[in-house]
Amino acid sequence: MGASVGFIGVGTMGGPMARNLLRAGHRVRVFDLDSRLVAGLEKDGAEVAANAAAAASEADCVITMLPRGEHVESALFGDQGAATAMREGTLYIDMSTILPSHCERFAHRLRAAGVCVVDAPVGRSSQHAIDGKLLIMVGGEAGDVDRARAFLEPLGDTIVHCGPTGAGQKMKLVNNYMSIALNALTAEALVMAESAGLDPEQARSVMLGTVAGQGHMGTTYPAKVLKGDLTPGFMVDLAHKDMGLALAMAGELDAPAWLGAVAHQTYGLARRHGRGAEDWTAVYAALRETAMGDER
Amino acid sequence: MGASVGFIGVGTMGGPMARNLLRAGHRVRVFDLDSRLVAGLEKDGAEVAANAAAAASEADCVITMLPRGEHVESALFGDQGAATAMREGTLYIDMSTILPSHCERFAHRLRAAGVCVVDAPVGRSSQHAIDGKLLIMVGGEAGDVDRARAFLEPLGDTIVHCGPTGAGQKMKLVNNYMSIALNALTAEALVMAESAGLDPEQARSVMLGTVAGQGHMGTTYPAKVLKGDLTPGFMVDLAHKDMGLALAMAGELDAPAWLGAVAHQTYGLARRHGRGAEDWTAVYAALRETAMGDER
Amino acid sequence: MGASVGFIGVGTMGGPMARNLLRAGHRVRVFDLDSRLVAGLEKDGAEVAANAAAAASEADCVITMLPRGEHVESALFGDQGAATAMREGTLYIDMSTILPSHCERFAHRLRAAGVCVVDAPVGRSSQHAIDGKLLIMVGGEAGDVDRARAFLEPLGDTIVHCGPTGAGQKMKLVNNYMSIALNALTAEALVMAESAGLDPEQARSVMLGTVAGQGHMGTTYPAKVLKGDLTPGFMVDLAHKDMGLALAMAGELDAPAWLGAVAHQTYGLARRHGRGAEDWTAVYAALRETAMGDER
Amino acid sequence: MGASVGFIGVGTMGGPMARNLLRAGHRVRVFDLDSRLVAGLEKDGAEVAANAAAAASEADCVITMLPRGEHVESALFGDQGAATAMREGTLYIDMSTILPSHCERFAHRLRAAGVCVVDAPVGRSSQHAIDGKLLIMVGGEAGDVDRARAFLEPLGDTIVHCGPTGAGQKMKLVNNYMSIALNALTAEALVMAESAGLDPEQARSVMLGTVAGQGHMGTTYPAKVLKGDLTPGFMVDLAHKDMGLALAMAGELDAPAWLGAVAHQTYGLARRHGRGAEDWTAVYAALRETAMGDER
Ligand SMILES: NC(=O)c1ccc[n+]([C@@H]2O[C@H](COP(=O)([O-])OP(=O)(O)OC[C@H]3O[C@@H](n4cnc5c(N)ncnc54)[C@H](O)[C@@H]3O)[C@@H](O)[C@H]2O)c1
Ligand SMILES: NC(=O)c1ccc[n+]([C@@H]2O[C@H](COP(=O)([O-])OP(=O)(O)OC[C@H]3O[C@@H](n4cnc5c(N)ncnc54)[C@H](O)[C@@H]3O)[C@@H](O)[C@H]2O)c1
Ligand SMILES: NC(=O)c1ccc[n+]([C@@H]2O[C@H](COP(=O)([O-])OP(=O)(O)OC[C@H]3O[C@@H](n4cnc5c(N)ncnc54)[C@H](O)[C@@H]3O)[C@@H](O)[C@H]2O)c1
Ligand SMILES: NC(=O)c1ccc[n+]([C@@H]2O[C@H](COP(=O)([O-])OP(=O)(O)OC[C@H]3O[C@@H](n4cnc5c(N)ncnc54)[C@H](O)[C@@H]3O)[C@@H](O)[C@H]2O)c1
Repeated sequence: MGASVGFIGVGTMGGPMARNLLRAGHRVRVFDLDSRLVAGLEKDGAEVAANAAAAASEADCVITMLPRGEHVESALFGDQGAATAMREGTLYIDMSTILPSHCERFAHRLRAAGVCVVDAPVGRSSQHAIDGKLLIMVGGEAGDVDRARAFLEPLGDTIVHCGPTGAGQKMKLVNNYMSIALNALTAEALVMAESAGLDPEQARSVMLGTVAGQGHMGTTYPAKVLKGDLTPGFMVDLAHKDMGLALAMAGELDAPAWLGAVAHQTYGLARRHGRGAEDWTAVYAALRETAMGDER
Repeated sequence: MGASVGFIGVGTMGGPMARNLLRAGHRVRVFDLDSRLVAGLEKDGAEVAANAAAAASEADCVITMLPRGEHVESALFGDQGAATAMREGTLYIDMSTILPSHCERFAHRLRAAGVCVVDAPVGRSSQHAIDGKLLIMVGGEAGDVDRARAFLEPLGDTIVHCGPTGAGQKMKLVNNYMSIALNALTAEALVMAESAGLDPEQARSVMLGTVAGQGHMGTTYPAKVLKGDLTPGFMVDLAHKDMGLALAMAGELDAPAWLGAVAHQTYGLARRHGRGAEDWTAVYAALRETAMGDER
Repeated sequence: MGASVGFIGVGTMGGPMARNLLRAGHRVRVFDLDSRLVAGLEKDGAEVAANAAAAASEADCVITMLPRGEHVESALFGDQGAATAMREGTLYIDMSTILPSHCERFAHRLRAAGVCVVDAPVGRSSQHAIDGKLLIMVGGEAGDVDRARAFLEPLGDTIVHCGPTGAGQKMKLVNNYMSIALNALTAEALVMAESAGLDPEQARSVMLGTVAGQGHMGTTYPAKVLKGDLTPGFMVDLAHKDMGLALAMAGELDAPAWLGAVAHQTYGLARRHGRGAEDWTAVYAALRETAMGDER
Repeated sequence: MGASVGFIGVGTMGGPMARNLLRAGHRVRVFDLDSRLVAGLEKDGAEVAANAAAAASEADCVITMLPRGEHVESALFGDQGAATAMREGTLYIDMSTILPSHCERFAHRLRAAGVCVVDAPVGRSSQHAIDGKLLIMVGGEAGDVDRARAFLEPLGDTIVHCGPTGAGQKMKLVNNYMSIALNALTAEALVMAESAGLDPEQARSVMLGTVAGQGHMGTTYPAKVLKGDLTPGFMVDLAHKDMGLALAMAGELDAPAWLGAVAHQTYGLARRHGRGAEDWTAVYAALRETAMGDER
């Protein structure tokens, strides 16, 4: 009943994912450059392939879960690469996090041979891979994405179709852009609290009660800029002033404030766009203008 | 029953705050450079003072709610400033957002005359001022802060004593540092989504399901670095790699990514501190080291 | 013969400057909060004043050379401040580096009393102060600036009249903005060379042969953007690409590259302004547009 | 007499370079994906090759001058790539600007076949390519670099051997890092001058008289930090203060100051390293410590 899956790259993420496919009743043939990892999966019921082409051969679906674009390129198009074994109609799903432009390039080459290509990078952590509770962001044509669901559902609890080929990667990178930078910003705020002689635990608890800790995406943005209301709840000019004070304090304390220093400049940009007296969420409107060139 | 309060600065925030004090049964004498604002309050039951000294004269408690440190300095120590009218034991509460070092300087001068000084800047918006639901961050000696509660409770629903004089300002600035920079970062992420051809509304909804939208303070930090566990859920090195990909994508799209570009450097710093294979929350530990000089 | 000068603030810079005024034949009355410094100048022929007002009293010209705006404010307008002793027609020269907006505020108050105000902050180092070879950037009305020359010429070898009151401070801050940030950038480049295993001395010598070491102001700018020629000698797009490569290399090496990361974003902005195929000096044109709003 | 050279990539830079090799008496066989460019060179005496392998076949020396690493990879290792035609002892010189790590990877593959590999990216502009006056930064083994000189000397007037394979690319990227970021900084300073109401031409001329315009590499660095003298000519703490003032002014003017905002943080770092009272060139020492981990 289950389909036949070739799974290439069974490291931290790929290993538990392959196990979840086995558990869901698929026949899984695995390949990894590290043979010990492959041996571990054999015990759990996987077949072992000697190379990527062998893993892909006769598979209904081929999945790659590899570190970077170079690895995907080599697993697909290198010596005994999977591309040589994929037939017209084979479903190929790349779940690695790679550049969208690389993803599009690989898809282009594979489609020439009739392969159906879907990108489906994942969010969350290795524990979520084990638990089959990944967030999966998918790019590809609707029909291909539908076929892919049978293989993605055992792996994640949230599957989001984001658009054509590459759109999964783009969503993944946007999400990671935000979470990774936010981590650096969070670190600055807590270190600044401690440098100021505050109790960082109290600071964290204060911030968890404000947008500082709760974020803007579910609070100020839907309440203001996203519904087109820029009457000031808190003004761009006041935010610009307060960030100036915070940076002056950080300067006196020698607390690192790299992201805030740059964010201060973003408010300057919003002021140059004539948005000083608008709600602080107008920063989004101003930045959008610089990027999209709609208005000025 | 109520006490006698001198209230200086009845603009966007101070006006509704003075009204809430009247409503709570205090006698309030107000002063503002803008006489129309004062007239409005007179109708609501406030007495009108001709200058800051007159507002402060014979008051149990003097409150200032002014734009910047310069304004506070002039309302206190300028011609007919409030300082001339405050007596031994008068309680002075500055609720403006100003530099902690200015706050400490003003407190120093007032204490020489026996005045009890508390700083109590506020968080949230003007609507919260109207509703008496401000977040109030307080600095000062315990006894003074206790006396201040009678005047703060009508104004806010969360009153946090953060430490000695200036600590209220420090907490306020740390909180604003975080929320103001986070706004700029949020704008970048949503603009990047749109530049990438994604639906920004879908991107927002995806991020609301991850730490990108929910923040680290209530999620990854308590689960990892704050309890001393740096075994990787998601590795610094992977975050560094993914931010590199996101920046490369942003570069191809010409999407603005100022904060992320700087955050990428912060991960470089964590790697230099030997934390590449640790959990990404180790960025906090690394930044703390550079600021506190504990180790490394 | 010489005029009578009140000199307030005789520290690292002010001390040697007062000596040069004595040497030029002026009668100099000095005041400093640090009495040892004053004593040293007494031996060299200065008169000693007990406070700022006494130094200013009966002087043709009063000069301040103090650390920050707060100090200038207190020396002028504090207890026994110089302002009380200056008469209609007294020439006041502030040579401290302070905020232009503070400078304008002080000038406004002094002019009300008929004082002639000039700002004349200095560039270069303490050795140049000793040698009378400072760079002096002057703001004020032409007549006042002309009167000031008699007092400035013994102190510096380059005296530049930059515009009305505050213009000297503005020029000073722009100059320092550039030199101070350039120092941080220079440090990054040399550290990156060493992190890459290059000989930093060889790297410095290579860069001294290119605009990297020689700067753009006297080379590419006059050759291209400043004469309106944006045909590409080196294209914005190529510079954007090369900075991307340099940042990728820095990422692999874990070399700090904060300024470059941000500069990369500036090229993104130039590309968004449609200037990708223009000469790299078009970055100036693009930035000018965002600041001046001329065009887009 | 002349040697036989295969030249791949005859665009803006490669075209004039190939002409200079012809002029120096070499036999040059060229290939480019754009056949019109090849036709132009044929008139000037070059032989035309149908693909990269044909250009490389029987050549003493093969040169590539292509946009990016991907193009070099495909010209070498793609279908009918040059690698198939290079023999034991063929000298291969890549003059494109690419990532050092890519350069090292390609060299590794070619060396396995006995090819002698040199990287020799160039500095300066297309006009210098025409004039044979490029700056050429070379990486490779001494013997190979010596062989390469015969082919490089017609192309440039400065040839610097920087170290082993990849070192030429590294030097090139460090040099470009500096010059490209410096362009963005220069733009900020001149725009700030204009925003402040100064004459930007006067500002440029003032800065050309200071390290702002002349750079630190040939002035303050050799005079101070590079000879181990950190006694302050101009103190880190003062530079930190002055940058704070410049940023405050920029904030009031809404002038963009992204690089300065970040540079201010670098001075904070130097202060955290205990270097506040040292010469401002100590910023280099502090940054070096964070990167090299020598000291703290
Ligand atoms: N680890 C996480 O928390 C996490 C979370 C979300 C997304 N991701 C992404 O998932 C992808 C995989 O990450 P990971 O943590 O599992 O990495 P990993 O390094 O643990 O595993 C990758 C595996 O790929 C194998 N491999 C490399 N090249 C190969 C080739 N050519 N052929 C066959 N096998 C090859 C390696 O031997 C290794 O076992 C990455 O793109 C990563 O960014 C990881
Ligand atoms: N507005 C907000 O959303 C908000 C939120 C949190 C904190 N704050 C902080 O609260 C403070 C006040 O902000 P606001 O929005 O009410 O400002 P505002 O400008 O609306 O009101 C300030 C008032 O002070 C008066 N004033 C100035 N100098 C004076 C003097 N010397 N004597 C008497 N009156 C004087 C002005 O006439 C004005 O009416 C600021 O520090 C601000 O940062 C504001
Ligand atoms: N040191 C340099 O290399 C340099 C170069 C260019 C410009 N500057 C600028 O020159 C100014 C002075 O710098 P410096 O290095 O001479 O500082 P400094 O600290 O060596 O000297 C300042 C002097 O002012 C005195 N002072 C402070 N407040 C006073 C008051 N109210 N009344 C009387 N005296 C008072 C102090 O006692 C001290 O002696 C600063 O604004 C600085 O930015 C310095
Ligand atoms: N232009 C400058 O001012 C300058 C200055 C210094 C360094 N560089 C560097 O020199 C290199 C070349 O730059 P350019 O300005 O000459 O670029 P260009 O785009 O003008 O020329 C590149 C040529 O390579 C050809 N090409 C691409 N892929 C090919 C392939 N696989 N086989 C054969 N030909 C191929 C293209 O058709 C094109 O003619 C780049 O790495 C650039 O960074 C340029």
